[in-house]
Amino acid sequence: MVFWIGVLIFAISSLMFAFLENRRYRQNMFSSHVFVSFFTVISYFVMALALATVSAENGQPIYWTRWIFYIGSCSILTIDIATIAKKPNVKKAEVAVFTALTMFCGFLASIIITLDRWWFFGLSTAAYIGMLYTLFKPSNEGSSNISSIMWFVLLTWSLFPIVWVLAPTGFGIIAADVEAILYLALDLVTKIGFGIYISTMR
Amino acid sequence: MVFWIGVLIFAISSLMFAFLENRRYRQNMFSSHVFVSFFTVISYFVMALALATVSAENGQPIYWTRWIFYIGSCSILTIDIATIAKKPNVKKAEVAVFTALTMFCGFLASIIITLDRWWFFGLSTAAYIGMLYTLFKPSNEGSSNISSIMWFVLLTWSLFPIVWVLAPTGFGIIAADVEAILYLALDLVTKIGFGIYISTMR
Amino acid sequence: MVFWIGVLIFAISSLMFAFLENRRYRQNMFSSHVFVSFFTVISYFVMALALATVSAENGQPIYWTRWIFYIGSCSILTIDIATIAKKPNVKKAEVAVFTALTMFCGFLASIIITLDRWWFFGLSTAAYIGMLYTLFKPSNEGSSNISSIMWFVLLTWSLFPIVWVLAPTGFGIIAADVEAILYLALDLVTKIGFGIYISTMR
Repeated sequence: MVFWIGVLIFAISSLMFAFLENRRYRQNMFSSHVFVSFFTVISYFVMALALATVSAENGQPIYWTRWIFYIGSCSILTIDIATIAKKPNVKKAEVAVFTALTMFCGFLASIIITLDRWWFFGLSTAAYIGMLYTLFKPSNEGSSNISSIMWFVLLTWSLFPIVWVLAPTGFGIIAADVEAILYLALDLVTKIGFGIYISTMR
Repeated sequence: MVFWIGVLIFAISSLMFAFLENRRYRQNMFSSHVFVSFFTVISYFVMALALATVSAENGQPIYWTRWIFYIGSCSILTIDIATIAKKPNVKKAEVAVFTALTMFCGFLASIIITLDRWWFFGLSTAAYIGMLYTLFKPSNEGSSNISSIMWFVLLTWSLFPIVWVLAPTGFGIIAADVEAILYLALDLVTKIGFGIYISTMR
Repeated sequence: MVFWIGVLIFAISSLMFAFLENRRYRQNMFSSHVFVSFFTVISYFVMALALATVSAENGQPIYWTRWIFYIGSCSILTIDIATIAKKPNVKKAEVAVFTALTMFCGFLASIIITLDRWWFFGLSTAAYIGMLYTLFKPSNEGSSNISSIMWFVLLTWSLFPIVWVLAPTGFGIIAADVEAILYLALDLVTKIGFGIYISTMR
């Protein structure tokens, strides 16, 4: 099962980041990537054991718990990105709250199987746009600070709602197991790939 | 339905505050009122779709989800008020935790339909008093900082538990639809009215 | 019932700490112990009223809500301990997130009654070790800052998972009522005893 592969990979990456961040940053950095990977391990365990799912109207299972854990892991990631973009603390807080709201509305959109779910997909999208706007908006000092990292984030993160729309959560064009593989690939890129890139860049 | 009116009004106010706060405060202020309105939009959507309710002993529906969303929106509001009152950061944190506990106990009091709910109404009141005490207590430097804003907050916020007691959540003297109208009026005053007043004051 | 005794004791300790912390610290300290006791009051009320429990395979009740409230109370406690150990703010945040993850996985381990619960017991233990490591690791400046308080915390906190393993949540060697007494004793030592010691020390 693809979820167990996710458990294994993110367990290893948790330990790897714990080792890397313990060695490098000394006392002055938050070990973001350890926590991002650890949240993802718990999330994949819950999905691997199929502890809480609902059935889509086409009978396919929906693993809505994923979005609860994204509230934690993705908020940490976007605070990290806002730090790289040298945003002030209030903007980091805004970016984190927008990310949390994006994932929370994503959770509501996933657990609801009636057509009403599209309202929450819309609210999630609105919060996501708010997050991107806050992140990409140039600060007053004139420096844009829009690095290649931010374009990478914009492109890879925006694939999540596309998978959501194609999967049983949306139109049900792809099956739940294909969905799981696609999300795993995206999780690998946005969480482990991004983490390694950031760690080596610094 | 009154909840759909709430969705519409708070969707508009979200956009309005996004426009106002984007134009005015530049990079150095947290866009509190955008988030307060956005939390409220989600809350009213959940109630409009009647996604999660319990039945009071008199058969009337109880929309307990409201109190979950107040944890987010009202904590942001009280941090805002504490900022205006020039409280130090630790006191802002205390005020936010007291507010979150008030709303969390309000949620427990609302979802429980037996007489035991009154225990949690009591705990919610205790946390509310703790919040008001922390907010109104003069700081050491002698300046009281108790502005007219804080009296406005004390008066309008204290109407929420009165509606709760009269509504199906409490003694069931007023019906669920009257309750919804009263809460909407209070939400308009404490969230949009307050937000506009603060925005023009600054 | 032992839970009502807990309600009573922690209600008194909430008021006691509110009095002590209001008198002593003036405007510059977070009233940690008031909140720790208040979270615990709510937790014991929920258990006393048996509002949400599951049955272990041996038929004994499992009060899993306890672990939800520990997320709040124990995070506040470990931030307090990290403050005493003079950790920088990022390390305080790490300690708090590790504590929250410990308790969250403890909640999952408690609400799941199949053998799968041991996976989450393992994840909880991993987060607990991460928390202890962050707390005990000497800072770069060479000062170890490992006080007698931290050994006290290590010893008393580590008894919680031992009770969990012996109780219906684990192997079911001890009954639910004995478990409740042991947890109450540990809560008294780690929350009220610790709070009084810290308050008099300062």
